[in-house]
Amino acid sequence: MIRINANYLKLQSSYLFSEIANRVAAHQEAHPEAEIIKLGIGDVTCPLPPACVQAFHEGVDAMADEATFRGYGPEQGYPFLREAIAAYDFQGRGADISADEIFVSDGAKCDTANIQELFATDITIALPDPVYPVYLDTNVMAGRTGAFQDGRYGGLVYMASDAANDYLPVFPEEPVDLIYLCFPNNPTGATISADGLKAWVEFAREHKALILFDAAYEAFIRDEQIPRSIYEIEGAREVAIEFRSFSKTAGFTGTRCAYTVVPKSCRAFDAEGRPQALHALWTRRHTTKFNGVSYPVQCAAAAVYTPEGLAQTRERVDYYLNNAAVVRQAMAALGYSLVGGENAPYIWLNTEEDAWAFFDRLLNQAGVVTTPGPGFGRCGAGHIRISAFNSAANVAKAMERIKTALQ
Amino acid sequence: MIRINANYLKLQSSYLFSEIANRVAAHQEAHPEAEIIKLGIGDVTCPLPPACVQAFHEGVDAMADEATFRGYGPEQGYPFLREAIAAYDFQGRGADISADEIFVSDGAKCDTANIQELFATDITIALPDPVYPVYLDTNVMAGRTGAFQDGRYGGLVYMASDAANDYLPVFPEEPVDLIYLCFPNNPTGATISADGLKAWVEFAREHKALILFDAAYEAFIRDEQIPRSIYEIEGAREVAIEFRSFSKTAGFTGTRCAYTVVPKSCRAFDAEGRPQALHALWTRRHTTKFNGVSYPVQCAAAAVYTPEGLAQTRERVDYYLNNAAVVRQAMAALGYSLVGGENAPYIWLNTEEDAWAFFDRLLNQAGVVTTPGPGFGRCGAGHIRISAFNSAANVAKAMERIKTALQ
Repeated sequence: MIRINANYLKLQSSYLFSEIANRVAAHQEAHPEAEIIKLGIGDVTCPLPPACVQAFHEGVDAMADEATFRGYGPEQGYPFLREAIAAYDFQGRGADISADEIFVSDGAKCDTANIQELFATDITIALPDPVYPVYLDTNVMAGRTGAFQDGRYGGLVYMASDAANDYLPVFPEEPVDLIYLCFPNNPTGATISADGLKAWVEFAREHKALILFDAAYEAFIRDEQIPRSIYEIEGAREVAIEFRSFSKTAGFTGTRCAYTVVPKSCRAFDAEGRPQALHALWTRRHTTKFNGVSYPVQCAAAAVYTPEGLAQTRERVDYYLNNAAVVRQAMAALGYSLVGGENAPYIWLNTEEDAWAFFDRLLNQAGVVTTPGPGFGRCGAGHIRISAFNSAANVAKAMERIKTALQ
Repeated sequence: MIRINANYLKLQSSYLFSEIANRVAAHQEAHPEAEIIKLGIGDVTCPLPPACVQAFHEGVDAMADEATFRGYGPEQGYPFLREAIAAYDFQGRGADISADEIFVSDGAKCDTANIQELFATDITIALPDPVYPVYLDTNVMAGRTGAFQDGRYGGLVYMASDAANDYLPVFPEEPVDLIYLCFPNNPTGATISADGLKAWVEFAREHKALILFDAAYEAFIRDEQIPRSIYEIEGAREVAIEFRSFSKTAGFTGTRCAYTVVPKSCRAFDAEGRPQALHALWTRRHTTKFNGVSYPVQCAAAAVYTPEGLAQTRERVDYYLNNAAVVRQAMAALGYSLVGGENAPYIWLNTEEDAWAFFDRLLNQAGVVTTPGPGFGRCGAGHIRISAFNSAANVAKAMERIKTALQ
């Protein structure tokens, strides 16, 4: 008898976004004339940079001609892209990462979801709370948790990231093996200093733990003091895997390209405590279960690193950062405390009341959709996430409406 | 201490293609003037069909304009593509499959690799021998096998597919839960009749097993009596998941698009023996760990179903089928017995001697690269796979050289 993976039955249904959709639909039915502004989901709105569009077209043209046609490519990505990434995103910032440590993929969601396959099922996992749900759900599916009770899964170590610790995850007090970190953070928009990140690297080294560092929003960092890669921290190569994405940098949410960095000296241990190179394990996983990113998409991604591409992507990120500043100013002027929105596209607002009640007020009185914090974990109570991914005109209008509604 | 998934240590290194590469390199070093013709790897050589190229460009243009830009799409694929697939590939052939049972992905390799996550780790798996290695390796990684010994992993049921049974897998004699089938077969090129496939569907129904049906090569079927989908067989909806790809149909090996069919009535069972819908489980897996296929790529794939696209893809498949016929005729004229090459792009040749020795003869005396059968499993001994994916001129030249060398 074919039996299912029973861990799937532990998964909670994705209540958050369906509940948001239900409430928005109810509002629209009651007020069919009302115009809704969505500052909820973190999806980009600016079109692809012209440099990427041109390279994308050239990649398609190459596929149309027998002389330049590309069939199966290297699963890890074409050298032209891996080399551009290593040179610009790492070596140019003093981080010692080489092209053959870059694994190009179709999304940071896929990579952060798949990476846990490399590890034993009985390791102890530490996750921030609030958290990007993919880290959590993929470990539930793999059987690394107990049942769901009182808003949390058994067997996991939740690292509270709330106002008491400047929205940075607290260090676990119990032994942990695998630590998920995300900076600039989704959902809070919090960033971490070099000293703060150094403490995590030292913690991992000391405890023979591994850090999974999600840097999908690093392009939003404008403060030169804030590290953009964990490999800017000494000693990180042995204890950290980093995830990056073109989604928010260059608007690739619908185009699909990302990458994962696994340094050759990064290690985990076998049952006898002998170190094993994770680069070899991830190579095996990536080449066995994945067939590379579409060639024209890789051409488009590589164009990000041309002078035009760099200027155009910076312009787009600046645009969203301006939106974030508008949200910060408006909400601060209303007296709310918040984090994020500087060096990050998300603002995490302390609602000082029930998050869903606040969500309803913004929806019903201002026609603005946000994301209630409890959807990201228990520590999201009393908070909402406001996204800067929308047009400047919509963001300005949304803030005007909120001011009128809440004042 | 962060510990690895110890199952990875059971994996055998991918000896086959590296050994082929080593032997080819040695030959080229010894004979730098010799021109090598590769009939080894199953990668297409014809450029993308013009209809796909045009739609691909239009998709890219849509991404360049704020008014038509697409961010995150539905993880399962856009309705325009899912509907075209359901209508043409299934309903048009009398198979009862609807658009919401189609899951668009970036590759059949990924899908056939990922699908095993839905099942318990202690189920019994039946695999054909010879076999596409992805089915095998992904179950090793997931811990469903014992150690590797004498050319096989413990704990698996290998279904011999050799001359004794017309190269069709024999039915398992022991109880099995999950059955991998691939028709037209990779590596043998064998096809299965409707009656033959009906026997497998009945076997699965009787034993509460599930069939994973890899139909990546279905476009090569020209004989109208041969089923192109398992859903042409009555009763298959409850017991079969089917995998399809645009790779070999439309030359998408470097463009990346495929799909998986999970009928809503397809079931597995929980620990209490209650049926559970696999559609819901795969939806959860697909939406949690995947973010959809690149929008312009989906546009290109949908163009396969336009009148121009259908004519152009058929023309390409015909081209490879003509190559396959040339190989069949040439090798049969030399007195070899073989299977495949009709309704399939692969020819599986009985070498009547050690497969690697025969491989070496073809390489050294004819400059032709093939794939030795033992790389696909123990039953591949004494066989080689010849691929029809190359230019007609190269295939003709290769056959002339082989005739001269072997006669």
